[in-house]
Amino acid sequence: MSTLSTPVLWAATLTLLMGLFYFYTAFRVGILRGRHHIKAPATSGHPQFDRAYRVQLNTLEQLAIILPFLWVSALYPITPQWLAPLIGFVWIAGRVIYLRDYMSDPEKRVLGAGICGLTSIAMFVVALCGVLRAWVATRG
Amino acid sequence: MSTLSTPVLWAATLTLLMGLFYFYTAFRVGILRGRHHIKAPATSGHPQFDRAYRVQLNTLEQLAIILPFLWVSALYPITPQWLAPLIGFVWIAGRVIYLRDYMSDPEKRVLGAGICGLTSIAMFVVALCGVLRAWVATRG
Amino acid sequence: MSTLSTPVLWAATLTLLMGLFYFYTAFRVGILRGRHHIKAPATSGHPQFDRAYRVQLNTLEQLAIILPFLWVSALYPITPQWLAPLIGFVWIAGRVIYLRDYMSDPEKRVLGAGICGLTSIAMFVVALCGVLRAWVATRG
Repeated sequence: MSTLSTPVLWAATLTLLMGLFYFYTAFRVGILRGRHHIKAPATSGHPQFDRAYRVQLNTLEQLAIILPFLWVSALYPITPQWLAPLIGFVWIAGRVIYLRDYMSDPEKRVLGAGICGLTSIAMFVVALCGVLRAWVATRG
Repeated sequence: MSTLSTPVLWAATLTLLMGLFYFYTAFRVGILRGRHHIKAPATSGHPQFDRAYRVQLNTLEQLAIILPFLWVSALYPITPQWLAPLIGFVWIAGRVIYLRDYMSDPEKRVLGAGICGLTSIAMFVVALCGVLRAWVATRG
Repeated sequence: MSTLSTPVLWAATLTLLMGLFYFYTAFRVGILRGRHHIKAPATSGHPQFDRAYRVQLNTLEQLAIILPFLWVSALYPITPQWLAPLIGFVWIAGRVIYLRDYMSDPEKRVLGAGICGLTSIAMFVVALCGVLRAWVATRG
């Protein structure tokens, strides 16, 4: 697909990685639901399940922020072009930390949640710069 | 990015605004969680927190409807091209009303929820028209 | 829009269908909330409502997996090009089965959930092949 730009290819790659991670958090919830005999439609009943379910749902909540920003920044890339993908990778690393810490103790989730929030803000700023430049260019 | 059309630029702009609003609803939940000492993984415990959390989750639920429709309508735009962006702006206004009314009294959420639902249907129709026209064009 | 490829048009079409189905699951929750007098911000209170709400939320959780994979596979299509759209249609069929079975008895949700999970994995593999091929092409 030589017609698609490198920023789009990076966004696609990160989307697959983020989707894979999220799929894993959802899969874990299903496994723990069976292990702890938590019958649907209940979404709580055992501390380990409750934590895993919150990790999944929080990841979903955060995906709805980072994914749209990532794609906007890929469609309207700014220099340096590695910045948006880098932020995406740090976001994923933050989610892995969040998952690990939350499962051991929900009070420890601050680091992972913080990385996630800051990278989302950073991705927003990058995407906003690209969009603003594009609006300026429409007047040129 | 002169290669991208104006409808796509509008979709990108609206995506940033919608994402920003949603980020705000999620941020508020975190703040209220701290203020009312609601320990994770609990997602209820104080009326104000419960409302804020429902506003966030409902916004997420509705984003999953409007965002895909917005982008499909941007990729397959119909005339007049300002229609889809306008619907997007009304959707955001509806969410702001929803947030304000829900926090004061959940029973008052009908207006904001109604605007949101109707604009989602409108965006669906606009996107559908664009896609149907594209299918017809593939046969031409 | 003759400039957009057929895989993108299929992705757009499937997005509208998936969005419409999800909209329906969300709409049902609103109806059942009224019928069973479940006041917001509560999200449980009657078995039928609880099931409908879980169906909606699970559909949202699964949409966050299939939609990104669908679009990546549309941007980086592989041969045969009907494969990704076909997987998308099977996913929708799986969700309809999931809705029907879950409402009759949550324990019966396994078939629909299984179809959904397997099609998500299949869509991931298809998207991954397209992205890997694109990365290889950037070195050519």
